[in-house]
Amino acid sequence: MPDHDDDAQLSMAAGDLAELLGGSLDGPADLQLTGIAAIESGGPGDLTFIRAAQFAKRWPESRCSAALVSEGIDIPGSTPGRAIIRVPDADAAFAAILGRIDPGIHTPPPGIHPSSTVDPEAQVDPAARVGPNCTIGPGARVGASAVLIAGVHIGAHADTGEGSTLHPGVVIADRCRLGDRCVVHPNAVIGSDGFGFIPPTEDKPAIRIPQIGTVEIGAECEIGAGSTIDRAKLGVTRLGDRVKLDNLVHIGHNTTVGDDSILCGRVTIGGSVTIGKRVMCGGSVTFSDQITIGDNARIAGGTVAMDDIPAGETYVGMPAMPARTAMANYSAFRTLSEFTRRTDKAIARIDRALGTSP
Amino acid sequence: MPDHDDDAQLSMAAGDLAELLGGSLDGPADLQLTGIAAIESGGPGDLTFIRAAQFAKRWPESRCSAALVSEGIDIPGSTPGRAIIRVPDADAAFAAILGRIDPGIHTPPPGIHPSSTVDPEAQVDPAARVGPNCTIGPGARVGASAVLIAGVHIGAHADTGEGSTLHPGVVIADRCRLGDRCVVHPNAVIGSDGFGFIPPTEDKPAIRIPQIGTVEIGAECEIGAGSTIDRAKLGVTRLGDRVKLDNLVHIGHNTTVGDDSILCGRVTIGGSVTIGKRVMCGGSVTFSDQITIGDNARIAGGTVAMDDIPAGETYVGMPAMPARTAMANYSAFRTLSEFTRRTDKAIARIDRALGTSP
Amino acid sequence: MPDHDDDAQLSMAAGDLAELLGGSLDGPADLQLTGIAAIESGGPGDLTFIRAAQFAKRWPESRCSAALVSEGIDIPGSTPGRAIIRVPDADAAFAAILGRIDPGIHTPPPGIHPSSTVDPEAQVDPAARVGPNCTIGPGARVGASAVLIAGVHIGAHADTGEGSTLHPGVVIADRCRLGDRCVVHPNAVIGSDGFGFIPPTEDKPAIRIPQIGTVEIGAECEIGAGSTIDRAKLGVTRLGDRVKLDNLVHIGHNTTVGDDSILCGRVTIGGSVTIGKRVMCGGSVTFSDQITIGDNARIAGGTVAMDDIPAGETYVGMPAMPARTAMANYSAFRTLSEFTRRTDKAIARIDRALGTSP
Repeated sequence: MPDHDDDAQLSMAAGDLAELLGGSLDGPADLQLTGIAAIESGGPGDLTFIRAAQFAKRWPESRCSAALVSEGIDIPGSTPGRAIIRVPDADAAFAAILGRIDPGIHTPPPGIHPSSTVDPEAQVDPAARVGPNCTIGPGARVGASAVLIAGVHIGAHADTGEGSTLHPGVVIADRCRLGDRCVVHPNAVIGSDGFGFIPPTEDKPAIRIPQIGTVEIGAECEIGAGSTIDRAKLGVTRLGDRVKLDNLVHIGHNTTVGDDSILCGRVTIGGSVTIGKRVMCGGSVTFSDQITIGDNARIAGGTVAMDDIPAGETYVGMPAMPARTAMANYSAFRTLSEFTRRTDKAIARIDRALGTSP
Repeated sequence: MPDHDDDAQLSMAAGDLAELLGGSLDGPADLQLTGIAAIESGGPGDLTFIRAAQFAKRWPESRCSAALVSEGIDIPGSTPGRAIIRVPDADAAFAAILGRIDPGIHTPPPGIHPSSTVDPEAQVDPAARVGPNCTIGPGARVGASAVLIAGVHIGAHADTGEGSTLHPGVVIADRCRLGDRCVVHPNAVIGSDGFGFIPPTEDKPAIRIPQIGTVEIGAECEIGAGSTIDRAKLGVTRLGDRVKLDNLVHIGHNTTVGDDSILCGRVTIGGSVTIGKRVMCGGSVTFSDQITIGDNARIAGGTVAMDDIPAGETYVGMPAMPARTAMANYSAFRTLSEFTRRTDKAIARIDRALGTSP
Repeated sequence: MPDHDDDAQLSMAAGDLAELLGGSLDGPADLQLTGIAAIESGGPGDLTFIRAAQFAKRWPESRCSAALVSEGIDIPGSTPGRAIIRVPDADAAFAAILGRIDPGIHTPPPGIHPSSTVDPEAQVDPAARVGPNCTIGPGARVGASAVLIAGVHIGAHADTGEGSTLHPGVVIADRCRLGDRCVVHPNAVIGSDGFGFIPPTEDKPAIRIPQIGTVEIGAECEIGAGSTIDRAKLGVTRLGDRVKLDNLVHIGHNTTVGDDSILCGRVTIGGSVTIGKRVMCGGSVTFSDQITIGDNARIAGGTVAMDDIPAGETYVGMPAMPARTAMANYSAFRTLSEFTRRTDKAIARIDRALGTSP
């Protein structure tokens, strides 16, 4: 639940909010809402969220003036002067409200800041917003409604897509392509060289394998701060549509990530990995090269996977195992030392009783 | 122990050094010290450090001219012309000496470099040092004695604090606040958006949850190179005072890190985690969302914690366990295969002797 | 095998290619090659690669016009109008071809872009290429044939070496030295401060230990995007020659990495670690402070090592163990829960049969 935040300016009547959210109002339509708060800490004027029965129980004592409630949850009692707004999904409604009160990020005006360097052979849409200290190379394309906040590098023949926002320090390297309406967070790198070497031997040093491919990213993707996506050795490292990467995620060369997949912080994907659609990875997951992760798979945080993971499965651990098995094994691991000692002891006891020996 | 370093110019008399460190001198006050070295490799003019008895034994044969010695350590024998300086703590004394001979980092002069872009509505103290290629947004504040070395981005209404040093490529995003006398290392990001999505289903894509909060960092914090700290969904992602983050650390949205906590390289903290005071995490630790780590807890490198860790405890492993239990279990794990085989064999042998079966 | 890539312009006759690669041609020297493709998906004009017998079996049905074949592999049958080029090593030959058709990265012309800031006391070779928005500090040296693509920061008295390429956002901090012909990928940081603190107590805050040493990097090293290498506390953090770091790798202060070692994505090395020559680490490996890894050691992805690893060994897991032992133990771990249950059950059964008890 959100904490109370003095800076969260909400300024709406309950009726207007219900209408905005497509919800049904039970209470005074003219009740003024001024803030958002947790149910136990808010006060008059605050809107809170009730998404489960455990929170509903606190409504009578709460000092909040209004609540967004997910359908199917009973609210015990009600107080005149307070409002309940029922919506299909309180989480989605919360997201809508946050979007409404979001102060946003300051962006440069349309045009190109004089401190930026744009190659004569680049194409920058006149409606694009290119802030200070950017560099845009020959043949690069910056689409309409693209926003480069500051210090962004667009390499030769690279493409920002339409309507994408690139935060400070982002690098889109030569020939790489970002889809439309993407958001790339500070210092992320798209198109660094893939990591390819024929390993050294006692007699010869490593041979570097040139990485001559590109990165192509679909529409409405988000790339977290400091994340890195390598260009392919040959061909394309590809993200589908609506892929979301958290911070410090690494995608190796020639990997494909399917539509709607979500990779949390510090996930590390090797090269030539195939990730399906709607795959969700917790933080710090590691995938070895060349494995395949099926659609709708869910991978718990900390997992290290060196083999394929089937579609629809939930995998956990190192090595990655089906969740049920992993939980059972890790549970046994918590008492492994005690188990080995008592088992050794029992076998010794039994051997003495039998007069046998190993 | 420090290695000998030709570049470590020390140029002090032993007596002056003893006075600087508040230590007691046994030996000639006018003995000239010219370098710092390990006890077994140094030579005339070198100062060395004796922090434990094992090093004290090497003093008679050592060619070093002087030694800093922690109180309570006996030095066998002594040589005319050599000096012993006793201090309460040789490590702290070493830190003081390094500080004295530190060449430091070149900083720009007071003022704003002409290549930087400062919004007319920003407030930059005249004594602040803003180097080349920085961007400072509307309503931002750069305090007195703040140093922005080069290529730093301060977003709208962000605040550097007084006396902080921001290395090249650092981003302090809109509305985020750095405390006084902080150091932020190259390419670190403060205030990237938190990672919040209502997960996709077969029928609907993910819904992005706007991240409208901020980051607030206390005084005398250090943020390592490439580290990322996400702004809160609503409210504040908060670091207390004197928090130290190593490189490539990730702090998720709405997390709180208590005073004096130390997080080593590549630690990854999820969202809404509460970390107490003086918590120490080794490298590569991962914390899941919404857990609480009590004051003075110590978390060994590589640990993956998905549940609360009590105050004062030392936890190890995946899953995180109390240290004693973890060490015992990992010790048993080292011979698990052998144990399972001999146990299966013993049970089969016993069954044959008894004429029983599973 | 490489995927077919419309953008991979190959335009060579088979005879010329054989000559370029030092291979022997079996087939028409004037056969025109226009692309590179996988053996099962390519078409007329495509060159493919056969590095193992399993691929050789597909040659008769393949529509590719030519194949590079590693020595020692039999090709069943042959078709007039198609070419086989035998080479000692198909992988090395592939690397050579990629190098030939690599479009490369756009670089600035020789000289210093007017938007860059170069200290009067810096030495920039007239043949060096310094792109937009770079900063070069007093006493820094930028060697002949060095390329700073854009937004690169070279600190005071730092040195790029000769012929090195530094991608956008790279930071080489004060007094650090890059060897000749290195490549540093976007947003990598060389010379951030080491992480050194005397830990806090209940009564006293942490004491910061000044990090006054440097980083020295050998020749022909590659440093991946977002990687960070800390300067030494005193002395040098050192990479040998031809060391290759993937993305988001962290090297702690005073660590030494020997010639020809290769560290994959997200490897995290603590402080004062000694890594030998030709050591190979898979992704996400973690090394604790002060351990030694012998020459030619191989460390599997995900491994967490807290103790020395001997030369020539392959280690796996957490804790790091010799590979054979690790594989056996992790194999046993996959069925640990089942094993503990059946073992407890068997012992109970035996106790009942014997009339004994624990």
